[in-house]
Amino acid sequence: MFEFKVIAESQTSRARAGTLATTHGVVETPVFMPVGTRGSVKSLCPEELLAAGAQIILGNTYHLYLRPGCEVIGRFAGLHRFMHWDGPILTDSGGFQVFSLAKLATISDEGVTFQSHLDGSSHLLTPSKVIDIQNCLGADIIMCLDDCIQYPATREDSLAALEITTKWALGCKQAWQKTQNGRNALFGIVQGGMFKELRKRSAEGLMEIDFPGYAVGGLSVGEPAELMLEMADCTLPSLPQTKPRYIMGVGTPENLIELVALGADMFDCVLPTRNARNGQMFTQYGTVNISNAQYKNDTKPPVPGCECYTCRHYSRAYLRHLYMARELLAYRLNTIHNIHYFISFMKQMREAIVANEFESFRKEFYRQLEN
Amino acid sequence: MFEFKVIAESQTSRARAGTLATTHGVVETPVFMPVGTRGSVKSLCPEELLAAGAQIILGNTYHLYLRPGCEVIGRFAGLHRFMHWDGPILTDSGGFQVFSLAKLATISDEGVTFQSHLDGSSHLLTPSKVIDIQNCLGADIIMCLDDCIQYPATREDSLAALEITTKWALGCKQAWQKTQNGRNALFGIVQGGMFKELRKRSAEGLMEIDFPGYAVGGLSVGEPAELMLEMADCTLPSLPQTKPRYIMGVGTPENLIELVALGADMFDCVLPTRNARNGQMFTQYGTVNISNAQYKNDTKPPVPGCECYTCRHYSRAYLRHLYMARELLAYRLNTIHNIHYFISFMKQMREAIVANEFESFRKEFYRQLEN
Repeated sequence: MFEFKVIAESQTSRARAGTLATTHGVVETPVFMPVGTRGSVKSLCPEELLAAGAQIILGNTYHLYLRPGCEVIGRFAGLHRFMHWDGPILTDSGGFQVFSLAKLATISDEGVTFQSHLDGSSHLLTPSKVIDIQNCLGADIIMCLDDCIQYPATREDSLAALEITTKWALGCKQAWQKTQNGRNALFGIVQGGMFKELRKRSAEGLMEIDFPGYAVGGLSVGEPAELMLEMADCTLPSLPQTKPRYIMGVGTPENLIELVALGADMFDCVLPTRNARNGQMFTQYGTVNISNAQYKNDTKPPVPGCECYTCRHYSRAYLRHLYMARELLAYRLNTIHNIHYFISFMKQMREAIVANEFESFRKEFYRQLEN
Repeated sequence: MFEFKVIAESQTSRARAGTLATTHGVVETPVFMPVGTRGSVKSLCPEELLAAGAQIILGNTYHLYLRPGCEVIGRFAGLHRFMHWDGPILTDSGGFQVFSLAKLATISDEGVTFQSHLDGSSHLLTPSKVIDIQNCLGADIIMCLDDCIQYPATREDSLAALEITTKWALGCKQAWQKTQNGRNALFGIVQGGMFKELRKRSAEGLMEIDFPGYAVGGLSVGEPAELMLEMADCTLPSLPQTKPRYIMGVGTPENLIELVALGADMFDCVLPTRNARNGQMFTQYGTVNISNAQYKNDTKPPVPGCECYTCRHYSRAYLRHLYMARELLAYRLNTIHNIHYFISFMKQMREAIVANEFESFRKEFYRQLEN
């Protein structure tokens, strides 16, 4: 079960609103997917994610494959029952973490060998193996194995990574077709470093293989935001208009609104969850560090008018106190607010697209931010 | 507003069931009070406490006085609004932590001076000051300043601590009467070390001053469980039958059932919350360490049949995974279960007392535990 429909398009940008029907439910795009790295969106339970408006969450194949492993999650017929989340799940292929977290990653046409960052044990991920693992995790949307290079990278290295990514994508497609049960959709991942022509070549290679959806990987890896947007700008239009387009690992609210304007549909990022644990709260007026002394006696909610659980029941002074005392509840209440903010922000963008008011929404967004 | 009624008494022990009406609601006794040291029952939100059956929680004056301080909590007219808990709250006087956590505690008739464990700043707690602080915290039940000695202690030291505790109790009563607004009840605290005759003397001294309720302090400070029970056994009957009797800082389920049998009504302890964060879950069959390898593939809930949120939705394998990965959700899900267990256990005891089946309940409790 997988169907993507564009239901509205902005007349002044490439922004679009859509619906993504998956085995575990319908997702409204553009969408922000909270990251549940190890089978848990850090500090939250699924009911809190639902209350914050989450429609789909992300799980990390690399982490879950290493711990607790497919044998354990297989007993639950997948991640949904294991973690008590009934909605759609997207899993990455593990590629990104292999290159950023694991040790001694070595690439061949066959796949990538690496040593676990947990215990140093050796593992080989091949295109067919990442499909098997993701099938076992039971995600609704699964990803191809890709070679995600560091920034900066030479054209030569970027080209090599692109070519192996395309080769692996073909292997993934074949493995997926063999095990296909109609319950999930496989996305290809565009690479190509910071070279526009390589990005296009990567997109074309993947479109030849043909996927139900496409992701743009290798962005937000240390490059300036302008360069990231430039790459997205050249890549997104070369991907099929009828398929969902997912920008991996991005980003700030400013990044999100610009990428939506460029025609992206799906996003994931650890920013709202990780920064919450560092005391940073997102608001339409910019970020707020709750540890700031000015909030010590402040009886106002973090964001007056915000409808999240945290803002409805707690004050800045209480959140600051919890954070200064390193109380576990601090991380959770901040995370609830941030996730709610990111999801509401996407929802507002969607409504603006549908009402053909995206440009004025974008202007108002920057106006509030700069105040 | 404070009224205690005994509604049923066991025919075979001193166990009794009662109701405690406070400004923020009625508490059914015997009752277990989860500990919210710094204005948060660690990792839980108030809705989760209510769902677990909590009727009253405890806040620690020492911690809250030092951080965030009365100036902050005063802005919220007390702890209730500050922490979003509408039910009854009991605060201790800070005495226990001054002697166990702070540095350089020095005692005089006037009170106790100490240095904060947070920043070394000097403070003086007097009987009238602990009343002022607790009035500011807005608790429904507040406690007298007491001198809680270490175990073991000589008769001489125990006697001296008892005498100063009685002196301070008189000062607290006078300060409380002056500031009395009908919104809270002040409890005296029996000390006397591990000497029966000193315990009785302490109880008598407090009863002469006359309090709405009485606590037994200085127990569970390192002495064997038998000695703790012996002290409770000699102290509880010497306190008024018509007043609530609170054993401070105790204890295991086995301790609780024995103390209920001896006629105690109220309890607090960090055991269910602290041990949850160490992966220990309480069950009617004894404690379980969720990190144990035997739970790796175990799809069963922690306690089959348990009605807590954790047992209704999660498996041992998932909880073990979260705990091994040090996920924040682990601490919370374990805490929910443990708090639910302690509160349900008290509720079952209460029902057994009301049904005059306390002895068979106690026998069944030990039978299950030994299986």
